[in-house]
Amino acid sequence: MRMSQLFLRTLRDDPADAEVPSHKLLVRAGYVRRVAPGIYSWLPLGLRVLAKVEAIVREEMAAIGGQEVRFPALLPRDPYEATDRWTEYGDNLFRLKDRRGNDMLLGPTHEEMFTLLVKDLFGSYKDLPAVLYQIQTKYRDEARPRAGILRGREFIMKDSYSFDVTDEGLEQAYQAHRAAYIRIFDRLGFDYVIVKADSGAMGGSASDEFLAVLETGEDTFVRSPGGYAANVEAVTTVVPDAIAFDGLPAAHAEQTPDTPTIETLVAHANAAFPRDDRPWTGADTLKNVLIMLRHPDGSTEPLAIGLPGDREVDAKRLEVQVSPAEVEPFGEEDFARYPDLAKGYIGPGVLGTENATGIRYLTDPRVVDGTSWITGADVHGSHVFDLVAGRDFTSDGTIEAAEVRAGDPAPDGSGPLELARGMEMGHIFQLGRKYAERLGLQVLDENGKLVTVTMGSYGVGVSRAVAAVVEGSYDELGIVWPKEVAPFDVHLVVAGKAPELFEGADGIVADLEAAGLDVLYDDRPKMSPGVKFKDAELIGVPTIVVVGKGLADGVVEVKDRATGERRDVAVADLVATLTA
Amino acid sequence: MRMSQLFLRTLRDDPADAEVPSHKLLVRAGYVRRVAPGIYSWLPLGLRVLAKVEAIVREEMAAIGGQEVRFPALLPRDPYEATDRWTEYGDNLFRLKDRRGNDMLLGPTHEEMFTLLVKDLFGSYKDLPAVLYQIQTKYRDEARPRAGILRGREFIMKDSYSFDVTDEGLEQAYQAHRAAYIRIFDRLGFDYVIVKADSGAMGGSASDEFLAVLETGEDTFVRSPGGYAANVEAVTTVVPDAIAFDGLPAAHAEQTPDTPTIETLVAHANAAFPRDDRPWTGADTLKNVLIMLRHPDGSTEPLAIGLPGDREVDAKRLEVQVSPAEVEPFGEEDFARYPDLAKGYIGPGVLGTENATGIRYLTDPRVVDGTSWITGADVHGSHVFDLVAGRDFTSDGTIEAAEVRAGDPAPDGSGPLELARGMEMGHIFQLGRKYAERLGLQVLDENGKLVTVTMGSYGVGVSRAVAAVVEGSYDELGIVWPKEVAPFDVHLVVAGKAPELFEGADGIVADLEAAGLDVLYDDRPKMSPGVKFKDAELIGVPTIVVVGKGLADGVVEVKDRATGERRDVAVADLVATLTA
Repeated sequence: MRMSQLFLRTLRDDPADAEVPSHKLLVRAGYVRRVAPGIYSWLPLGLRVLAKVEAIVREEMAAIGGQEVRFPALLPRDPYEATDRWTEYGDNLFRLKDRRGNDMLLGPTHEEMFTLLVKDLFGSYKDLPAVLYQIQTKYRDEARPRAGILRGREFIMKDSYSFDVTDEGLEQAYQAHRAAYIRIFDRLGFDYVIVKADSGAMGGSASDEFLAVLETGEDTFVRSPGGYAANVEAVTTVVPDAIAFDGLPAAHAEQTPDTPTIETLVAHANAAFPRDDRPWTGADTLKNVLIMLRHPDGSTEPLAIGLPGDREVDAKRLEVQVSPAEVEPFGEEDFARYPDLAKGYIGPGVLGTENATGIRYLTDPRVVDGTSWITGADVHGSHVFDLVAGRDFTSDGTIEAAEVRAGDPAPDGSGPLELARGMEMGHIFQLGRKYAERLGLQVLDENGKLVTVTMGSYGVGVSRAVAAVVEGSYDELGIVWPKEVAPFDVHLVVAGKAPELFEGADGIVADLEAAGLDVLYDDRPKMSPGVKFKDAELIGVPTIVVVGKGLADGVVEVKDRATGERRDVAVADLVATLTA
Repeated sequence: MRMSQLFLRTLRDDPADAEVPSHKLLVRAGYVRRVAPGIYSWLPLGLRVLAKVEAIVREEMAAIGGQEVRFPALLPRDPYEATDRWTEYGDNLFRLKDRRGNDMLLGPTHEEMFTLLVKDLFGSYKDLPAVLYQIQTKYRDEARPRAGILRGREFIMKDSYSFDVTDEGLEQAYQAHRAAYIRIFDRLGFDYVIVKADSGAMGGSASDEFLAVLETGEDTFVRSPGGYAANVEAVTTVVPDAIAFDGLPAAHAEQTPDTPTIETLVAHANAAFPRDDRPWTGADTLKNVLIMLRHPDGSTEPLAIGLPGDREVDAKRLEVQVSPAEVEPFGEEDFARYPDLAKGYIGPGVLGTENATGIRYLTDPRVVDGTSWITGADVHGSHVFDLVAGRDFTSDGTIEAAEVRAGDPAPDGSGPLELARGMEMGHIFQLGRKYAERLGLQVLDENGKLVTVTMGSYGVGVSRAVAAVVEGSYDELGIVWPKEVAPFDVHLVVAGKAPELFEGADGIVADLEAAGLDVLYDDRPKMSPGVKFKDAELIGVPTIVVVGKGLADGVVEVKDRATGERRDVAVADLVATLTA
């Protein structure tokens, strides 16, 4: 491809709305161009990279027996109504009406449609297992589209779905996808982690997320020295051993006026009731937080959460735990309905289904039997000290709602957890029979009995992956494409304006192309070498060949974009060198 | 690809909503599946054919220097507002609002977006010419989606746009596209015609349509023995020579009671005023039709059209002629405002800007000077005979609004016109500077002066072409794919259940695939040969290889799907035979 004919204008300045490197570089180097918030066009260079990423995904899907289909993006409402997602997606769903007034939507993901297709065409266990996938344009009306194609409102996804009769079949399909995703992301070459995406606490099925490790990522995850990794939502707390009650001091209530917060309580405790060996800290206190749950049927239920006073409730972790109920605040009028709750001084004495308020009371897993706490005495201005879990109070169970912190012990016992940020690039999920049940996907089993099919759902953010590759591979000069997804193999620059150089370059390009290499040929006759070099660094093709003065001696310069290493290569050896 | 693993179920019955062969066959043979009216999914076989059509289009676009990009389908309103198309598209446009209440649309075609992209990145005449294209999903909310993927609401199009400084440049880009389209449609292998799509009467630029010749097509076109072809809207009437006035009888009014229609008038004329040499026919009468035009600014204007009484006004031809005005009926209240109009007996005596009504009067091109007519005398129950055009009346001009009929003389003088039906597969259009003006696309010319760019717009219905290929190539057994777009090269059927046959077939398939052939391998172990053969005929792969009893003698049967011709081929010669 001759650059004089390529539809490309590199830009000197970062786009005004760009914050992350991939967004800045992909726009500046002419790969994508913004049309509207979160909506981008692919320019010729970008489309080439996209095609390479798609090819990798197709190869790895074919390798696990995936069969490609393509659904429309414009979909009828009914199937999404049957699974409640027409409503559940809320503002994230693009909805519209056709000319006859029928409700339609732009597909955010296609579980319903694949389920119906298989129901439509398959009827027997002999037809299964099946893995179907598509690489297709998806739509989500993100509240905060950002970072260019890293989080768009129109984007390209590979979504696949597995269909099996047995749970073992689903597990196999799931593991096959997991292995395929590892190959895909290894080939794409950016740093990623596989994190557990669901703690399973509420009966959820297995789910792993593939996160690109990115400082600017939207998801926080944890990892341990031993290789454990999880979404913050899925982190399980390491439960300390229970402590024997023998010899623990008896609980005693103390006057603690004006200490409705942990901070004021700890200060007061250290001043009025100092401990010999070490000062009191928030970790010695048991904080009791009240929330209101709203269940899908509209009913509400109060919930009390007891956790060490030095930790906050993590809203996302709590959400996952109480889902499908939603979390609402416990307001003044709610407090008014429970006169036994002494706000700021609430303790386990009144919490729990067996106690005065009857409010369900769940505690952090660290609140094991034998741990001693300073906590509310259920009287304004008073706390109880040395209140021992299991001896002096019990809860209705535990809940993983406390924030996770760097340094917390890792569940795999390999040391302290590290917190990092990432961006979801893939997600694999054992759906089980939920969609098949809602949409009536059954097949006849070996005994002629109708059984409900079990499904898996698996996604790769294809357009997003293009940005993730850049996030993982750039420098101050521009993009540094890994070989497998680079738009071209070689970027050949003519450094000079002498006709002989262009003639020589023409021949070299022809030779390289004949050898199967894709060459971006900077044949622009009047552009200075400096500008051409800058463009080459910005565009980021892995190998840059400079045809300059050395050509008279039969030599060109070969530069490795990633390392910056340069060497002279005889023109006669060039093809062999570059295809080696 | 092993058929035992292919996501495919062939169907015995035609889908209930299918009327045309391609719709029936593509659904029955498992290429596409309906999701909603005019909205289809592509199954694995269909996606393979689609990919082949896309590859042909890409190759031919690359050959004329087209550069591929990809725009989003979800677009902001503003650019389409600037060109009035937000409104002009009417109900055909899918409109929606995003979560912030912004108006958006699903792109029906992308002139605006390409214009803005080029404006965004280009600034000099040196950047031009440029041809950009995309193969992308488009949306039109058709009033009557029909015929499966032949006329869908979500469909795939190749749309390209050329950008030039000069009219000569546009003409070159136009001719290059015309040649590329000929190569594309030749390779797709269905019968097509290139028809003039615009008569140019209203100052429109050059435009050709590529129509697949289909009995079930929606467009009527004409063609002549000499190769002239045109859309009915674009047919130009052959204008007869003027006739000298000398010796023509003088006009005379006659009583013609109760003859408000051409039929009653002709009957009365033949009864009361018979002509010596031949009877009067509708062709001897001049019918005057009144319509009301509504201009884009909302104002209305009456228009009278005079045409031979044996022809009706063709609504589509009229529409093109009066565009951008719209045609509305001339109602009772309109007649009431013109007391000079004697309904049923209206003649040129009161029509025309110079006459009593002042209504603009346009006549059919056949109403040349010297032609004699029976027409209304502007008095109820009376007609004028021998009223001679140019002598007794004149009009304000001519209009191409009369219906075109088979047998009409062709404009190229080669004989009578034939009428046929077709389906638009491609359309090339010289847009000129309309979009560039509306959206401000200017570049600096050689003298540093800003000039407006001139554009062309070119489309190919890619998904529709898949159906057109089938319409042009099927028989009572199923689809008959041309080689270049077939989903596979070879369909290998094992006819029998003996394990040796499958072992032999495995080896043959491996050999064929090693030779670069795509093989659909019907390895289904329990299916009867009859069912397998039926499926093979229905699916329509060009070459069917049957591995049966002859295998013991080292022979397989090779059947040509198109001709039905069968011959035995030695296994050892099979690769050579099929790759010859």
